Amino acid sequence: MTYQLYYWPTIQGRGEFVRLALEEAAADYVDVARGPEEKGQGLPALMALLEGDRVLRPPFAPPFLRDGRRLIGQTAAILLHLGDRHRLAPRDEAGRLWVHQIQLTIADLVGEAHDTHHPVGAGLYYDDQKPEAARRAREFRRDRIPKFLGWLERILARNPRGDRHLVGARVSYADLSLFQVVAGLRYAFPRASRRALARTPRVAALCAAVADRPRIAAYLASERRLPFSEEGIFRRYPELDG
Amino acid sequence: MTYQLYYWPTIQGRGEFVRLALEEAAADYVDVARGPEEKGQGLPALMALLEGDRVLRPPFAPPFLRDGRRLIGQTAAILLHLGDRHRLAPRDEAGRLWVHQIQLTIADLVGEAHDTHHPVGAGLYYDDQKPEAARRAREFRRDRIPKFLGWLERILARNPRGDRHLVGARVSYADLSLFQVVAGLRYAFPRASRRALARTPRVAALCAAVADRPRIAAYLASERRLPFSEEGIFRRYPELDG
Repeated sequence: MTYQLYYWPTIQGRGEFVRLALEEAAADYVDVARGPEEKGQGLPALMALLEGDRVLRPPFAPPFLRDGRRLIGQTAAILLHLGDRHRLAPRDEAGRLWVHQIQLTIADLVGEAHDTHHPVGAGLYYDDQKPEAARRAREFRRDRIPKFLGWLERILARNPRGDRHLVGARVSYADLSLFQVVAGLRYAFPRASRRALARTPRVAALCAAVADRPRIAAYLASERRLPFSEEGIFRRYPELDG
Repeated sequence: MTYQLYYWPTIQGRGEFVRLALEEAAADYVDVARGPEEKGQGLPALMALLEGDRVLRPPFAPPFLRDGRRLIGQTAAILLHLGDRHRLAPRDEAGRLWVHQIQLTIADLVGEAHDTHHPVGAGLYYDDQKPEAARRAREFRRDRIPKFLGWLERILARNPRGDRHLVGARVSYADLSLFQVVAGLRYAFPRASRRALARTPRVAALCAAVADRPRIAAYLASERRLPFSEEGIFRRYPELDG
């Protein structure tokens, strides 16, 4: 069974959280919008599902995942699905929901990171909202990054099974997502995230451990891993790093 | 078994999505932060769980729900939990996840509604970001409200079991959440939401039907239902309604 992942073809974006889970699971998948149009892939294949009249359960936005007859949208919902199927979440209901709760909180951090460069509206260019972005980024650097990473550090410190994973004694999709959001913060806010990570050593250590996992390391070194860029969620605008 | 709901005591906010599910389920619950401090309730009880050193799985922010020994944060995760326990979601895995996907998309709409009055930062006052709010609200009214409500209208139109519910043939927490977000939009953006709802008659009809459900109607008429206000997510600032 081959999964079909649909996401914007040129950025990591929210699709990257799904890619990391698929890679860690060594799952067969096609990154459809990055494939050739002559094979029925590419952006038109994505748009056909997003806008098609006959999709019974249409996603609101990418990423979405085709698993057989099912089409699943919303990053966190996709991960909930993959977590069950590939042991990337605990089997017990409480642990499974706790991983999901962490994922949803990481998603909030991702959303706030995006809004630093687009506070006035996603439909405008960054150049049209630079002063507002500077104000929003100041609060994000000073208050929000430390608050989110501090919460994740506490979770690691309090995990009864040890501080090597957010939940339980083995990797979950929340660990992978933490790696990704920290990678993004390091790209976009190198100075602010260095300061915050100095105070959250368990978070820093988990991110390093995820990057060293064999499948993740192979993925990161491959062409499948798109680079960060100023088209994505995490953008390096030095003026926003204070 | 009595649930304990923890949320800011003076606003509907994100807690309201949980309250509506509990009310529709006729579940026993205590709205802890609104209770008397001398009974161990009130805001200190909420803060103790939010900031306490010994909470193994601390929530990042309200709302959170105590169910026996479990403490669950993140609105959508709480609803996933309640949906299973009170038949507010389908039992089949695909339907259950589809309801959740809709809920997560409604949560995105709620977040964008909030950001219209706080585009530059939640830590600042509205008065410190009025011009930015006006710009952001313009995009929200013109593009985002119609896009979200249009998507929900399509889901209703395509539901094989009929357009009276978002998923299947009976009420789910997604129906209740749709009612709430539309109530909020009507409060905050009466003109813009009237225009959008004129084009999404199924959405409007579902919201009316939810308000008429006996338990919901009784709740809305009770003192348990807090009013909308300019302290909450949905704020009536006429200048933002265009």
